[in-house]
Amino acid sequence: MRTAVLVSGRGSNLQVFLDAWTQGTLAIEIVAVGSDQENAQALERARQAGVSVRAFPLGAYPNRRAQERELLGWLKDLGIELLLLAGYMRVLSGEFVREAGFPILNIHPSLLPAFPGTQAQRQALEYGVKVSGCTVHFVDEGLDSGPIILQEAVLVRSEDTEESLAARILEVEHRLYLEAVRLLLAGKLKRSGRIVTVI
Amino acid sequence: MRTAVLVSGRGSNLQVFLDAWTQGTLAIEIVAVGSDQENAQALERARQAGVSVRAFPLGAYPNRRAQERELLGWLKDLGIELLLLAGYMRVLSGEFVREAGFPILNIHPSLLPAFPGTQAQRQALEYGVKVSGCTVHFVDEGLDSGPIILQEAVLVRSEDTEESLAARILEVEHRLYLEAVRLLLAGKLKRSGRIVTVI
Repeated sequence: MRTAVLVSGRGSNLQVFLDAWTQGTLAIEIVAVGSDQENAQALERARQAGVSVRAFPLGAYPNRRAQERELLGWLKDLGIELLLLAGYMRVLSGEFVREAGFPILNIHPSLLPAFPGTQAQRQALEYGVKVSGCTVHFVDEGLDSGPIILQEAVLVRSEDTEESLAARILEVEHRLYLEAVRLLLAGKLKRSGRIVTVI
Repeated sequence: MRTAVLVSGRGSNLQVFLDAWTQGTLAIEIVAVGSDQENAQALERARQAGVSVRAFPLGAYPNRRAQERELLGWLKDLGIELLLLAGYMRVLSGEFVREAGFPILNIHPSLLPAFPGTQAQRQALEYGVKVSGCTVHFVDEGLDSGPIILQEAVLVRSEDTEESLAARILEVEHRLYLEAVRLLLAGKLKRSGRIVTVI
């Protein structure tokens, strides 16, 4: 399945997919990696794996809509069939999601609907939760609000810092995101409204 | 520790505390059970255990404040040192919480801050989460918003109904609420702002 990944940062989840692809353990071909950040570390990872990369910095466009149209046009031209967000720090518009025509997945470092948006791990620690986790979901036009595919809990420890909690959640993210894509490729995700069932 | 329990419904969590008290497995004395519902099944459970019960139906008072004042006066007269909410369907005011002077705990059938308020299990199923759970927390004037003492995750199954999910969460509630009270009695809960640490 012709797959693109959108990133803004380090790209550790991107790396998991690059590895799975190059090792042939997942039936995807990573065709392109896009970013809103020209200097995202993730783009370097993609280049090293021989993947075509392109940045769509918001400042280069008159508005967000124009940036999205160019991004979507690029993905369509490449014949993308699956789009994975991996730390992409922009909310896609409803127009983008509707016109895409291919599934868009995202992973988020909390048990949604708790702690959407940025710094989810810090939000969780400041709230004082004892259980957090991560969520793989289909992307809709909202902020981390789309139908949930998989979730897994991660216990918060009293000695946790934002970094230690983020690191423990990230380990689970890598496994969970792969599993969700594997289920999707195997045709095992049944979606009805906002309910996603693994069949 | 002289303990009162507030209820509105069936009182299954109340029963757990009544049992622990009568069996001598928890160092509390259940002095009184109050309710905003005159016909709550929980009141019958309390009567059967020989506990003094009293209803404070909102309709019998000019306003909520008057109801709360009478309820608080009753608890103070009884020398209550600990108040447990067990399915009490009213939010206590900030005035009540501040003037109480004793700790007030509540249990809620979701991983707060997700799905506060009524029908948390239905909210969770309708959202489509894969992980829910329950939360024991100190009560503040907000809706299920107080500092979290303990949480435990419960997996949502694809075949779950509101009833089956509620039943599985309830099993955990019974254990978790007891454990939280045990930690409180043992002086093992350290509270700093909204962060509660088990020491």
